[in-house]
Amino acid sequence: MSETVKYLLDETHIPKYWYNLAADLPAAAPPVLHPGTMQPVGPDDLAPLFPMELIMQEVATEREIPIPEPVREVYRQWRPSPLFRARRLEKVLQTPAKIYYKYEGVSPAGSHKPNTAVPQAFYNKQAGVKRLVTETGAGQWGSSLAFAGALFGLEVKVFMVRVSYNQKPYRRALMETYGASCTPSPSNETQAGKAILAQRAEHPGSLGIAISEAVEIAAQRDDTKYALGSVLNHVLLHQTVVGQEAMAQMDMAGDYPDVIVGCTGGGSNFAGIVFPFLGAQLRGGKKVRIVAVEPAACPSLTRGQYAYDFGDTAHLTPLTKMHTLGSTFTPPGFHAGGLRYHGMAPLVSHIKQLGLIEAVAYHQTTCFDAGVMFARAEGILPAPEANHAVKGAIDEALKCKAEGKSRTILFNLCGHGHFDMQAYIDYFGGKLQDLEYDEAELAMALAGLPSVKAA
Amino acid sequence: MSETVKYLLDETHIPKYWYNLAADLPAAAPPVLHPGTMQPVGPDDLAPLFPMELIMQEVATEREIPIPEPVREVYRQWRPSPLFRARRLEKVLQTPAKIYYKYEGVSPAGSHKPNTAVPQAFYNKQAGVKRLVTETGAGQWGSSLAFAGALFGLEVKVFMVRVSYNQKPYRRALMETYGASCTPSPSNETQAGKAILAQRAEHPGSLGIAISEAVEIAAQRDDTKYALGSVLNHVLLHQTVVGQEAMAQMDMAGDYPDVIVGCTGGGSNFAGIVFPFLGAQLRGGKKVRIVAVEPAACPSLTRGQYAYDFGDTAHLTPLTKMHTLGSTFTPPGFHAGGLRYHGMAPLVSHIKQLGLIEAVAYHQTTCFDAGVMFARAEGILPAPEANHAVKGAIDEALKCKAEGKSRTILFNLCGHGHFDMQAYIDYFGGKLQDLEYDEAELAMALAGLPSVKAA
Repeated sequence: MSETVKYLLDETHIPKYWYNLAADLPAAAPPVLHPGTMQPVGPDDLAPLFPMELIMQEVATEREIPIPEPVREVYRQWRPSPLFRARRLEKVLQTPAKIYYKYEGVSPAGSHKPNTAVPQAFYNKQAGVKRLVTETGAGQWGSSLAFAGALFGLEVKVFMVRVSYNQKPYRRALMETYGASCTPSPSNETQAGKAILAQRAEHPGSLGIAISEAVEIAAQRDDTKYALGSVLNHVLLHQTVVGQEAMAQMDMAGDYPDVIVGCTGGGSNFAGIVFPFLGAQLRGGKKVRIVAVEPAACPSLTRGQYAYDFGDTAHLTPLTKMHTLGSTFTPPGFHAGGLRYHGMAPLVSHIKQLGLIEAVAYHQTTCFDAGVMFARAEGILPAPEANHAVKGAIDEALKCKAEGKSRTILFNLCGHGHFDMQAYIDYFGGKLQDLEYDEAELAMALAGLPSVKAA
Repeated sequence: MSETVKYLLDETHIPKYWYNLAADLPAAAPPVLHPGTMQPVGPDDLAPLFPMELIMQEVATEREIPIPEPVREVYRQWRPSPLFRARRLEKVLQTPAKIYYKYEGVSPAGSHKPNTAVPQAFYNKQAGVKRLVTETGAGQWGSSLAFAGALFGLEVKVFMVRVSYNQKPYRRALMETYGASCTPSPSNETQAGKAILAQRAEHPGSLGIAISEAVEIAAQRDDTKYALGSVLNHVLLHQTVVGQEAMAQMDMAGDYPDVIVGCTGGGSNFAGIVFPFLGAQLRGGKKVRIVAVEPAACPSLTRGQYAYDFGDTAHLTPLTKMHTLGSTFTPPGFHAGGLRYHGMAPLVSHIKQLGLIEAVAYHQTTCFDAGVMFARAEGILPAPEANHAVKGAIDEALKCKAEGKSRTILFNLCGHGHFDMQAYIDYFGGKLQDLEYDEAELAMALAGLPSVKAA
């Protein structure tokens, strides 16, 4: 029962470029619109928020975008990350399927998030920025940006969704140990926060509100920029190191996936593992089934509308076309905080719309069942977000068993759950519930989508 | 500020044998004595507690003990672990010293402990054992044995020091997720526990008491054995994979340590990195200064007596000659729970007695200062235990600066602190105190050392 199959690349195999899916898409994604003019935004519109290098990556169409050497230098601390064959899990499942997983929990912050935090910190530092402002839900992103900020000598301020701020003091402590400051959101430090608190003094907060606060602060000062941990094209771009390494590692294994599974919140870890394989398919390579797994309590891909919407609650961001539950939708408080966002990355939404990927939604209890089975078989305890991918992969493996077919399944184990043990305590204590969103609230949020003429 | 220098071996370099320091010592360590007869114990005396393969390793004198292939298979999940040059820390310190650290936090349990948990589980499984019983303080060892038990299909029962059981529910949850059961100690499940509770119903527990409980349970059933996470020769032996890899990695770096620093509780992570280098020295290789760093609140090497003593409070274990504070000594509740043990490994004590190593003791606040500096420079947040090694290495580097000399410093960063964030919260909140042990209690504990005629 002890067999380990690990595919490890040496560090000369850290990718030298990020892969840009836009270069290979059969149709371009719809443009991002200015919230005032409803016209496509230009680079200058985004300049108050991001350094120009990241804005150019946001709209880039070249297939390969070089990774700066100082970024690769930092990646070397934990990259290339390992790819494992889950032989022990296969045996437990008695499946003829071959299950592989890419493990991103080896980063210092414990997830895939540093893959983009590091280049974002680098480009901002290079542009003379002194301070980064961001938001975080469960804290994976905030602690990753805090890590990157410490390495590049940038001040980092994080608006943390208040309910998580109170429930997850350890993630907050990690950010503070890296030298970042952490403010519960909604706060009295911004107009957006004050407006929310005026309506409801004890508001638990949401990612949409925290984004509004961070954007508002970033727009006020020239030496301060905004950073986002998912959703945007350049964030997804940076995560493609995951899929590129996985391709090389599947090659080492002499195998190629029939199915790729990733969990989706904003879409970045999913895009990271999927886009390089999808690009190869679009350029004439082997067709791969791709399955996005999302939480049933926040099901943007399976229950949202594909429509223009704001990224934040106060409507300070540009409008993007995406699968959305409406920017006023507040998902219930399930444990996978990284998946509690009302919208989906425009690029992931676009390929869903093009029929290139499937999506499925699961409730959290069944995902924790899968995560515990995985931990006991493979020895790694997954984050609650990652449990969704584990569940998706196990279901695919059980389908293989039912059909008597051997298929090759690859999934992204995007982070470890060492900061999420309360969720496991609740699970073992029988306190984990399958939370449902409010259908009436969803209807209202969708009815409130901004009216946008065909662009 | 982003330069990463990592030395990574491919998995063909996972050691094929453990290195046994006993083969190269100028004088053998004093024998282990039977508590009844005061005569040296034989293998049969230990058979109720350990499988014969581990007993033979305990007394082995061969230099190289082969690592079974199924153990190497599991090691491959995270080994070889990386060796880093701490260039960013060197810059912060403005030291001419070169600082290297071996990082054992990459294991699934987050520390060096699985290096011995895995072979212990393997040999027990091979001997037909069904259940392992052990104790744990902070939980690093308990969760590592739970991990190994899950992989080899062994039931694992952990007696966890009650104060840690209550303070660290997340470590407990990790053990339970791996399928182990966890009991607060002292408990009513053993005679040893009942006797303690009869004296003091709210006793906070200690490692010495938890060991008594685990040993008592293990001795009752043929299908049940005991496992210990440090102190014993075979445990230290298993950890030598750390130092062997580090030697190969220093070789890759074209360098060799002038000073090696490790933190010491029971002595196993220290022995792991030190013994292979010390062995090379004893066989005529380069002399290395070796510094053991221990907590000032539990200073066995710097304030203990080198004497025969029991490993546990109820005096169920054999007597070993070691630096001890007395088996009734209860250290104050500082955060590095893995260093709160009254004794030191007999082999580490022996080489201290032979003058082959130095020892120094630090209070916890200065160790956390060092740990936070390290986290911000190197991006890895150390466990409170590891902060002692960080502090020792920084002090050596500052000595180099004061003397204007460049020396090569190597230390073992034995684990990450993701399960120890409350300690960091206390630190930033100004609540961390430099706890002192009770001098009168120490004097009494030392006065109570068993009387042993020269063996």
